[in-house]
Amino acid sequence: MSNKITLKSIAKELNLSVATVSKALKDYKDISEDTKQKVLEYATKFKYKPNSFAQSLRSNESRIIGLIIPEIVHHFFSNIINGVIVTARKKGYFVLVMPSEESYEDEVNQIKLLTEKNVDGILVSLSNDTINYSHIKQVINSGVPVVLYDRISKLISASKVQIDDIQAAIKATEHLINIGCKKIAHIRGPLKPQTTIDRAKGYRQALQDNNITYDKNLVYNAENMSYEDGYNLAELILREHPEVDGIFCFTDLVAMGALKKLNELGISIPEQISIVGFSNWFITQTSSPTLTTINQPGFLIGQEACNILIEEIHAKRDNRPFEHKTIKIPTELVIRESTK
Amino acid sequence: MSNKITLKSIAKELNLSVATVSKALKDYKDISEDTKQKVLEYATKFKYKPNSFAQSLRSNESRIIGLIIPEIVHHFFSNIINGVIVTARKKGYFVLVMPSEESYEDEVNQIKLLTEKNVDGILVSLSNDTINYSHIKQVINSGVPVVLYDRISKLISASKVQIDDIQAAIKATEHLINIGCKKIAHIRGPLKPQTTIDRAKGYRQALQDNNITYDKNLVYNAENMSYEDGYNLAELILREHPEVDGIFCFTDLVAMGALKKLNELGISIPEQISIVGFSNWFITQTSSPTLTTINQPGFLIGQEACNILIEEIHAKRDNRPFEHKTIKIPTELVIRESTK
Repeated sequence: MSNKITLKSIAKELNLSVATVSKALKDYKDISEDTKQKVLEYATKFKYKPNSFAQSLRSNESRIIGLIIPEIVHHFFSNIINGVIVTARKKGYFVLVMPSEESYEDEVNQIKLLTEKNVDGILVSLSNDTINYSHIKQVINSGVPVVLYDRISKLISASKVQIDDIQAAIKATEHLINIGCKKIAHIRGPLKPQTTIDRAKGYRQALQDNNITYDKNLVYNAENMSYEDGYNLAELILREHPEVDGIFCFTDLVAMGALKKLNELGISIPEQISIVGFSNWFITQTSSPTLTTINQPGFLIGQEACNILIEEIHAKRDNRPFEHKTIKIPTELVIRESTK
Repeated sequence: MSNKITLKSIAKELNLSVATVSKALKDYKDISEDTKQKVLEYATKFKYKPNSFAQSLRSNESRIIGLIIPEIVHHFFSNIINGVIVTARKKGYFVLVMPSEESYEDEVNQIKLLTEKNVDGILVSLSNDTINYSHIKQVINSGVPVVLYDRISKLISASKVQIDDIQAAIKATEHLINIGCKKIAHIRGPLKPQTTIDRAKGYRQALQDNNITYDKNLVYNAENMSYEDGYNLAELILREHPEVDGIFCFTDLVAMGALKKLNELGISIPEQISIVGFSNWFITQTSSPTLTTINQPGFLIGQEACNILIEEIHAKRDNRPFEHKTIKIPTELVIRESTK
């Protein structure tokens, strides 16, 4: 007979039920400190090593959470991945990272795979392609906790973690107004995601608050959210509106492209045109001139989203009610050389 | 009684053993195509949904691989993560990403956690702190396949995927020689990792091959591998060796810092000093001037490492022998504005 220490053998030895031993080892609230102490000492002494599969089967917990992320090679999203993984590790959870690559189909597929893998919960940032949310509602209805981060939808009933894009865009645009820009263009992103919509709203709001007439012809669309978009649109803006003296870009990558083109055209920044980006990617510190931007704290977003998800997982496990939370992470303007 | 379709009920219905049904669903080689077809049709018709925990317990396969990575917020490593995850997904594997944050202790701890989680295999890039390899040898000895990528050690018996750092560094240094640089400095990284050692070797080799005397005073050390290191060392080089007309930096981030300082000091690049980086981070395309560098294909490294690991996992599962492979991924010089 094997001398392997199992939950059963511990239970027998200590005259407890297997369920009590299991719960004690997992630090459940309904087990007394005395019992926990006794079980832990015994388990440690006899080097109890749980079999992770068997353990999962018994507890129906995998201690794994899924992370659906639109892109991996992306400064902001990398920071979120890092925040999620570091936070999850501290609480004893593993993270399966699944990139949707901005595709609705991939997102649906990855979420399906994660539920088949019996993850304890899922963190989701919607792809730019996603307009139907039934795949996410289905997961929530099946009892798996979901927290949305960054790219959320108001139509999904779940906890949400994001920045206040409207307020951040107001901050960015007002900075341009305050330093004396009279004709401010906005380069916005694709039409669907709420983040882009809100940043465009904030731009408009700031103009109105400062008695500057909003002119829709000064709003340009960076459909691919790319460096090349910024590069090409900067030239277009100059041609169509040579009087523009400030540009607020909805993301740093696009701003960096615009900066590059303006440098090439011999436009002096910030003297002739001031530029503000959004996100505070590392590259904004390395360009000439360095880029003024909004700091969007990815690590913190990942950390908060992960914490809330684990709270909800624990509440579900312990049959406690859980109220969804909506967290807005604060942002700040980082002033650098690209604005006067 | 539940009508749930299980392996057992399928086996009973088709008059097969449970093991045969299980193997058929997993496309094992020792099951006939006829049987596979029959099982698959039945499973599909009655919507058989495997319980992932029970499945793992039975098969002793988790379909999960672990990825130990020194840093997450890092352009090159992000590309590797992406390559690994995309490749793993195509082959039906999930990936647990575990950052060592360049710490030996974290690396040991993360690997221990992964084995407790019963992952099918582990991909490892050693932290810069790691000089003892017993934690990795132990995993290999326990029968879990390991593939080393990027930061490898010759002292570990496992498959390895990396670039040829010596050849790449020769290419970078010879480019500086070919464009007419007479006094070429090298900014190297910390002393331990093989990658840094090999890049410094390649620098020395290229000088010797071209009858240029190697001068150890022209080799500077970027201990933190940081932007600030490059920024500070550029000034030091100018002060100690004003005759330097070329700098080969062991990594792009450090090169970008040096570029920034030289720009600030009014040194014209490439006219007075040419600079070559290493890795082809995205930022090298956005600086002024843009940076000449060595393209280190992260996605490809991740893809190859993952493919070999899964090959070894399958060989082990099927009791086939597996010979370790050492793959050198080709690199290329990307010439941009920072060299004449």
